[in-house]
Amino acid sequence: MGGDLVADPSVTAVVRLGDTVRFTRPPGLAAWAAVGGKKEADGPLAAGFDLLFTDNRLGEETWEQAESTLQRHCVELLLQKADASAAQIDLALGGDLQSQCTATAYTFRGLDIPFAGVYGACSTMAEALGLAACLTAGGAADRALAMTSSHFCAAERQFRTPLNYGGKRTPTAQWTATGAGACLVTAQAGPGQVRLTAAAFGRVRDLSVKDGTNMGGAMAPAAAETLRRFFADNRCSPADYDGVYTGDLGVVGSEMLAQLLTAEGIDLAGRHKDCGLLLYDRETQQTGAGGSGAGCAASVLAAHILPALKTGRMRRALLVCTGALMSTTTLLQGESIPAVAHLVELTAPES
Amino acid sequence: MGGDLVADPSVTAVVRLGDTVRFTRPPGLAAWAAVGGKKEADGPLAAGFDLLFTDNRLGEETWEQAESTLQRHCVELLLQKADASAAQIDLALGGDLQSQCTATAYTFRGLDIPFAGVYGACSTMAEALGLAACLTAGGAADRALAMTSSHFCAAERQFRTPLNYGGKRTPTAQWTATGAGACLVTAQAGPGQVRLTAAAFGRVRDLSVKDGTNMGGAMAPAAAETLRRFFADNRCSPADYDGVYTGDLGVVGSEMLAQLLTAEGIDLAGRHKDCGLLLYDRETQQTGAGGSGAGCAASVLAAHILPALKTGRMRRALLVCTGALMSTTTLLQGESIPAVAHLVELTAPES
Repeated sequence: MGGDLVADPSVTAVVRLGDTVRFTRPPGLAAWAAVGGKKEADGPLAAGFDLLFTDNRLGEETWEQAESTLQRHCVELLLQKADASAAQIDLALGGDLQSQCTATAYTFRGLDIPFAGVYGACSTMAEALGLAACLTAGGAADRALAMTSSHFCAAERQFRTPLNYGGKRTPTAQWTATGAGACLVTAQAGPGQVRLTAAAFGRVRDLSVKDGTNMGGAMAPAAAETLRRFFADNRCSPADYDGVYTGDLGVVGSEMLAQLLTAEGIDLAGRHKDCGLLLYDRETQQTGAGGSGAGCAASVLAAHILPALKTGRMRRALLVCTGALMSTTTLLQGESIPAVAHLVELTAPES
Repeated sequence: MGGDLVADPSVTAVVRLGDTVRFTRPPGLAAWAAVGGKKEADGPLAAGFDLLFTDNRLGEETWEQAESTLQRHCVELLLQKADASAAQIDLALGGDLQSQCTATAYTFRGLDIPFAGVYGACSTMAEALGLAACLTAGGAADRALAMTSSHFCAAERQFRTPLNYGGKRTPTAQWTATGAGACLVTAQAGPGQVRLTAAAFGRVRDLSVKDGTNMGGAMAPAAAETLRRFFADNRCSPADYDGVYTGDLGVVGSEMLAQLLTAEGIDLAGRHKDCGLLLYDRETQQTGAGGSGAGCAASVLAAHILPALKTGRMRRALLVCTGALMSTTTLLQGESIPAVAHLVELTAPES
């Protein structure tokens, strides 16, 4: 993990290495929460969730409102676990897949916290976390909240067809998670806190995939680009990490990512895991190529990755969230699918 | 302009006063650019634009592509004016009104710059500028680009009805600008550079306006909330500023804002201007209650406000961009319109 520091770490909390922002006094993750729906409750990570609903409507009239309610529960649990009040949060960064990011906007109606909306499709959690880390390390906030969500039923009718239509799914199609994940990022990691030690914002890549049911294929080049740059900028390799988690390439995109990185001389074998493949049991749960959606990586992070770092089962991990940046309009207009991948490096508490 | 500094400004470039992030070594605006369409070319600010198109399709097949092309021209002009290359930009923050922010995502396909998408509807420019200032002041970037856009024809068919339908406009309806505005924010203002001296991120407010053709009314409470807090946090008043620019309340929202702030003992008279009322001549251009759209405030900033600060015609100004955070889905579901307002304080170059 070499690299030339470009600033005096005794004065500055941030150094930059290419596209990587590395924190010399890293922000901490004071708390996190994961909330999920029925399929998530039936999946292998259920035990890691803070709250699971068996009815995906959560008592609301619409799927869209249900997604906001998922988020509300997630923020409430996060604040509870952090023993903090809304008034102690300086800034919330969040977004979702609904057009105009309404799930998140409507959630923050009921929360008196400064709110900056972000959008990176399924890359949103890493984007929000990366920004939260840069802002807290830089003094713009002491405590920043990062959150994203998705809802299977809201996403299906927005991006594909309403559920009642009963459209057939292709084998490459991924299953949008019904879930929300949130983290509280603090300016400087305290004892026992998982540390956010680096962040890298991705560049948009488009290898001309036009198939809206093959998001994994569309997003793999963006993940490869961000990882390739990160390993080069930081003079490190997958072997330096206990896990390199993508969110969410599914089985098709994961294979493509391995191929693309192998061609660059980077071997992910034994290190790579995909949030979309962890959240569900593909054999028994019929989730196609795997899970996806902004809430997939966010909830897997909170339910699975962060607990492993907190307890020392992992020392260091990368989370690379990938977003497919198209809309139904651009797909109908014959456009291909641009994608972006943002990355955060997570490190176990100082021992 | 009192307030208790919470950190030693010789070490830190950022102090926080309530919701305000104040920069003790303020970032600079190295360059800016504004690009517009036909109606903007016919308006009173035309001379301030860098580029104006008489055909709003810009040679593209769709309105959506045309908006990306507006943005591309805007970035190219910005880089030219800053004498910078894309490789010298550490991070771009941008978004737009299209569902899933596709105008911006498709623009950044063609630009090899790390890209973090933001969404705040018509508040996006102040949000992007505020984040860019926090990130550069905090060391996460040396040069950050902030950009937003809107396109009348793309917005009409997305939020209201396709143009060909010929729907009648209500008197409270605003006219979505066809325009893009971009700024290059640098870590520390150089000689002669306009300074971004403070930023404040807003809280979501919803006073139960459900009329999608009265955005000004829906957004005024958010602007009032952000301004009220800013003046209190910084112990200052509108009289400390040569201009308090909102973007974009139009005539209806502007009246509401004045009333809401008067009730709080804050007098905007003689200071308040609205970007939506500056961009067009309402009498001759039939723009209803005034201009709006993420590109309205962004292009008025670049075409009108920043030049006045650069040349010293103004010493200090506030830009408060307001965003209505609904979608057509939430409106059809009978939801009211939540809104947010983000603020940046802009100061003339050091003399």
